[in-house]
This record gives sequence, C-alpha cells and structure tokens, in this order.
Amino acid sequence: MNQALTFSQRTKPARHEGHLTIGCLIFPRMDQIDFTGPFEVLSRTPDATVHVMAKSLALIRDIQGLILTPEIVIADAPRLDVLVVPGGYGQRELMEDGEILSLIREQAESGRMVLSVCTGALLCGAAGILSGRMATTHWASWDLLPCYGAVPTKSRVVVDGNLVSAAGVTAGLDGALVVASLLRGDPAAEEIQLSIEYAPARFFRPDLRIRPRPR
Amino acid sequence: MNQALTFSQRTKPARHEGHLTIGCLIFPRMDQIDFTGPFEVLSRTPDATVHVMAKSLALIRDIQGLILTPEIVIADAPRLDVLVVPGGYGQRELMEDGEILSLIREQAESGRMVLSVCTGALLCGAAGILSGRMATTHWASWDLLPCYGAVPTKSRVVVDGNLVSAAGVTAGLDGALVVASLLRGDPAAEEIQLSIEYAPARFFRPDLRIRPRPR
Repeated sequence: MNQALTFSQRTKPARHEGHLTIGCLIFPRMDQIDFTGPFEVLSRTPDATVHVMAKSLALIRDIQGLILTPEIVIADAPRLDVLVVPGGYGQRELMEDGEILSLIREQAESGRMVLSVCTGALLCGAAGILSGRMATTHWASWDLLPCYGAVPTKSRVVVDGNLVSAAGVTAGLDGALVVASLLRGDPAAEEIQLSIEYAPARFFRPDLRIRPRPR
Repeated sequence: MNQALTFSQRTKPARHEGHLTIGCLIFPRMDQIDFTGPFEVLSRTPDATVHVMAKSLALIRDIQGLILTPEIVIADAPRLDVLVVPGGYGQRELMEDGEILSLIREQAESGRMVLSVCTGALLCGAAGILSGRMATTHWASWDLLPCYGAVPTKSRVVVDGNLVSAAGVTAGLDGALVVASLLRGDPAAEEIQLSIEYAPARFFRPDLRIRPRPR
C-alpha cells in the first residue's frame, strides 16, 4: 500500500502571508479532474485567486470530451505563487512544447510552488525540474520517473521543497489539500476538506498492484 | 462515522445491457465537482454516452467561477438511462423551476435512474421524488431532507430503488462508482476506480460532526 504523504529532507514551503495567485494549466486531451479537483480545493483557499490558463483562449476538450474554457493565455499570466500542472493523455503532445516547459521551469527555479497531478509530473520532468527530486505520478507512468532523474516515491502526495506531486487523477484533490495546508495552515485545509465532504469511502478495493486491461 | 454505502429494502436497479445514455444537469452557481466528479467516472463506463445538459446553451459559471459549457438543452435531451442532479448554492434558485423539476420527476417516475449529488437531493425533493425514500445529502443540508418526506440516511451513498443519492460534493465520485457497479457490474467499477486512482488518503481528519465557521 502506498503511503499517504511523504516529505523529502528539503525545507518545506513556508506559510504564505497575503493574497495567493494560483494558475492552473489546461490543455487538449488532458484529464479534466486533474484540474477540476485542485480547482475545487484551491478556489476555496482563503484570499486566493485561481487563473485557468492555456496556450490560447480556444475551447479545450478533455480526453472524455468535456469542454473546458481558459480565461488567460500563458503569455499574459501574472506571477504565480502556485502553478498546477495536470496530466492525462494530452500531456504527451506537450513534452517538447517550449512555452509550457519554460513556464514550469521558471516557476520552479524561482522557488515558487509547483503542484503536479498524475502525468503532469512527466511535463515537470521534461522541463528539467525533477532532477534529484522525490516525486510521484499515476501508477501506470511510474516507471518513467527515473528517465527524468526523479526519485520515484510511492506516496499519494510527495512534497520535495517547492515541488508537490500527486499520484493519479483524483490524487489532485489530496495534493491541493496539502498545498492549502502548507500555504495557509492545517485548519484552513481541514475546513476545505469538511466543506467539500472529502471523506471518501472505498466500496471497491481493487489491488493497485494489478493493472487493468489495456485500452 | 457515516456508513459508506446503504441499500434500502427496495429492489436494486438491474444490470443494464446495451448502450447507456447518461445526462448530467448543470446550472449557474452549482458546485462544479458535483458534476465533474460523476462525469469522470461515468464517461469511463463501458459503452456509455454522457450528455452535459442545461436550460440553455449559455456558458455557466460555477460558484467559484469555473466556466462550464452545456452541449444540449433539456428540451432536446434523449431518453436517459441515468440523470445526474448536482448541487451547490445555485440549487436554491431552481427549487421552483418547472422544467428542471419535471425532468427529474419524469426520470424517476419512469423507473430510470437518478443520481443526486450534494444538495441536488433537495432538487429531487422539490420534484417530489423523495417521499418515503432513503436519501443523503451534504451534511450542512441534512436537516432539510425530512421537509420532502425523505428518510435521512447517514451514509456516503444511499441506493433506494432507482434513486441513488450521494453526500456532499466529492461524494459524487463515490455515487457514480456505485451507479457504474449497479449498471455494469463490480469489475467495471473497480477498473474505473483503479484508472482514476481513487484511493484517497486522509491527511486531515476534521470531525464531520463539527460545522465550520459560517461564510
């Protein structure tokens, strides 16, 4: 069984005083809940603005066809305290995208926070920010983390300095709660968790070591 | 502590053979994840089409400002095997909306499935379909269920015949997994759960009996 939350030896991100500016990247053929999960949590964080960002303002369809609408292009984005990098199949098409990779690299190198969800971690890898960092991703992409110099860490959420990585898909909710707790304190995160009633049951207990049939 | 899953004495919905047609209602000032959670699960259900429905095709903003785009108006909706009724603050403005209440009532009375999420249960109540039914909703709206003749049931998901109700907000993921298991069998639900890595950790353990400060 995976761990829930793992911290590296690196210094934890400090509590943030003042307004929080958060940006969520979206892109075609992403997995929508990699974004809507963190949006749900982070938009409820006290004194925060969440920007929904993309390469252009065109409508985006996620891998299952859900329409998402960006409100700002990357080029116009303000300085972000937190950048959310989701995943899903569309991540593959961005692995050599200079604009996306620069966005991630500059965010990380400035010391500001990056939250990767699912295969968003691979975008972070392509941006070169995983080298020597503990990180997690969707179980099906687990084996790819070392390609980017990351230290694969079996945990639903991993905090390594200013890089927070969440495992697959719905783990973005957990990753965002951890970000909220780091920046605003545990009581703020607990209040969000309570308001969104995130106390999941597990009716089904699939063995996460067993892989489902290929699509 | 709430139960995870409760079944009433009423006959469970039967396994569904053939294509599944699913409709998710969306409306202004809803809570987006009441919809995007079930969408994530139901869109992955084998041989299913998910329609995103609203009163008009105008863009919708959820309570935190996320833009959602309907693709079909209620009047043009096909016969639905499953109707998803989300909640959130905007539910209050629909409690006397004839079109919405008729949609819910006709779905339920035909014996086809209704999945309510969060305060979507109150819309079901206003539509008159909760009378004598076991149901759940967001904990903050719990006390309102008896106003509609429902039997409030402390459970993350409640199945009472063709009515499946999920508790607050993120419980829609669990409710949709139960719907998938009822209609397509446990292995299908387990495969979806595995693919979306829905194995949440609980870092924070707020006491769900204590209410957070009023907004």
